[in-house]
Amino acid sequence: MQETSSMQSELPVVRADREGKERRTDWTAREYPLTIMLNNEQLVTLLCSPADLKALAVGFLVSEGLLSSREELSEVQVDDERGIVRITTKVRKELDRELFLKRVLTTGCGKGISFYSFADLESPVKVTSNISLAPGEILDLSRRFQGHSEIYRSTHGVHSAALCSREDILVFAEDIGRHNAIVKIFGRCLMEDIPVADGILITSGRISSEILFKVAKRNIPVIISKSAPTDMGVQLAGTFGITLIGFVRGGRMNIYAGEERVT
Amino acid sequence: MQETSSMQSELPVVRADREGKERRTDWTAREYPLTIMLNNEQLVTLLCSPADLKALAVGFLVSEGLLSSREELSEVQVDDERGIVRITTKVRKELDRELFLKRVLTTGCGKGISFYSFADLESPVKVTSNISLAPGEILDLSRRFQGHSEIYRSTHGVHSAALCSREDILVFAEDIGRHNAIVKIFGRCLMEDIPVADGILITSGRISSEILFKVAKRNIPVIISKSAPTDMGVQLAGTFGITLIGFVRGGRMNIYAGEERVT
Repeated sequence: MQETSSMQSELPVVRADREGKERRTDWTAREYPLTIMLNNEQLVTLLCSPADLKALAVGFLVSEGLLSSREELSEVQVDDERGIVRITTKVRKELDRELFLKRVLTTGCGKGISFYSFADLESPVKVTSNISLAPGEILDLSRRFQGHSEIYRSTHGVHSAALCSREDILVFAEDIGRHNAIVKIFGRCLMEDIPVADGILITSGRISSEILFKVAKRNIPVIISKSAPTDMGVQLAGTFGITLIGFVRGGRMNIYAGEERVT
Repeated sequence: MQETSSMQSELPVVRADREGKERRTDWTAREYPLTIMLNNEQLVTLLCSPADLKALAVGFLVSEGLLSSREELSEVQVDDERGIVRITTKVRKELDRELFLKRVLTTGCGKGISFYSFADLESPVKVTSNISLAPGEILDLSRRFQGHSEIYRSTHGVHSAALCSREDILVFAEDIGRHNAIVKIFGRCLMEDIPVADGILITSGRISSEILFKVAKRNIPVIISKSAPTDMGVQLAGTFGITLIGFVRGGRMNIYAGEERVT
């Protein structure tokens, strides 16, 4: 029903366990910034999977109350090289930008991105740290982290995050939002004078570009998840010099970036 | 490490399978709107789990570059009855509201909510539909939906959504964002003249308040997920007259609201 192949990227990974490392490739979900231009004005940039872009752009207008029938559409053009969908409508509804932006905040999960963050990429600051970890230490930390995540197991609706040293969990937090759980860690660390930089962050959630921007700003050199990263998450980890370890489960893990810190 | 009990609500549910129905209770993750007031100005309202609210508010400021050390904080007051954290800082950084709102769009998952949506609740429009379904039909639709979600199984990073009749899947979409997958359905339906109202929506993701607002506006009477709803999702389903079915797995399901449509 759609071009599913475009929704994944094949990336080189290092598969590691307590015994050693092995090079292979793995499939990762693509994360793609799509800008919607409505009647020649930039409306919003969404982070999405690059399939059904026309449906996403039109559906976004429907969902935001900016379009109510097919008759109102005059043209929908997809420029998938540049990541832009241009929509022109017969009736131009007046848009209150602040109200609109506030409203878009309701759309949650991977639903928006600002050029502001991407502007940081013009001269990215590298995370600097001499920390290194053995695969066994990563597996031990992940096991402890799982043990802490009681709520997640009972309702399957809550994410967790932890800041760790090589040996133990220093701060642990849970939230229905995977970003909130990480933000709670930052808040606790500031209030309790626990240094964040040079720490290891574990999250229960997917590692997307938005997480990498957050983590890079706090100079955190290692991020670990039992879930998968997106391709853009992996790319940004490389840009920022962050070690990204995903799919930590069954005694194994995939190192997607910054392999040099895993000894 | 935190008051985990406050993160869940015990709700009445109807457990159903092909044989019949049974009343019981189940634990559901709480979803709580927290407004951050910075130096007496309303900054943002986050949807979160109601634990570690101080850490969430402080961490949000840290993450947004509005706070960099504990010394800058003069006061943090939590009013958990009204869902407000008031923070005063020694230095008042100038805030460009539009840039800030755009920036907050990067924070994804359950990270923001507008009063705009909640304003709709003052005179909520009820979803009207005479559709009814047997538990067996719900299980059959869910099985077909799982079969469509190939990508999800291979990368564990993609959500899916489908609009269904009682008999079959009409439109199917996938995306890294659970909201995007649903929005793609709305877009396809508008472009292909497929009526959305009176349909059944299946999603792979958690059913939160934000999803309910979207679905209610399209007059969709039934929403189904293999995942859990939040307590606020359940409450809004009641308000909008939507049948909410969660935890569809292992031949069983929980009906959280609108039981009368399940025969």
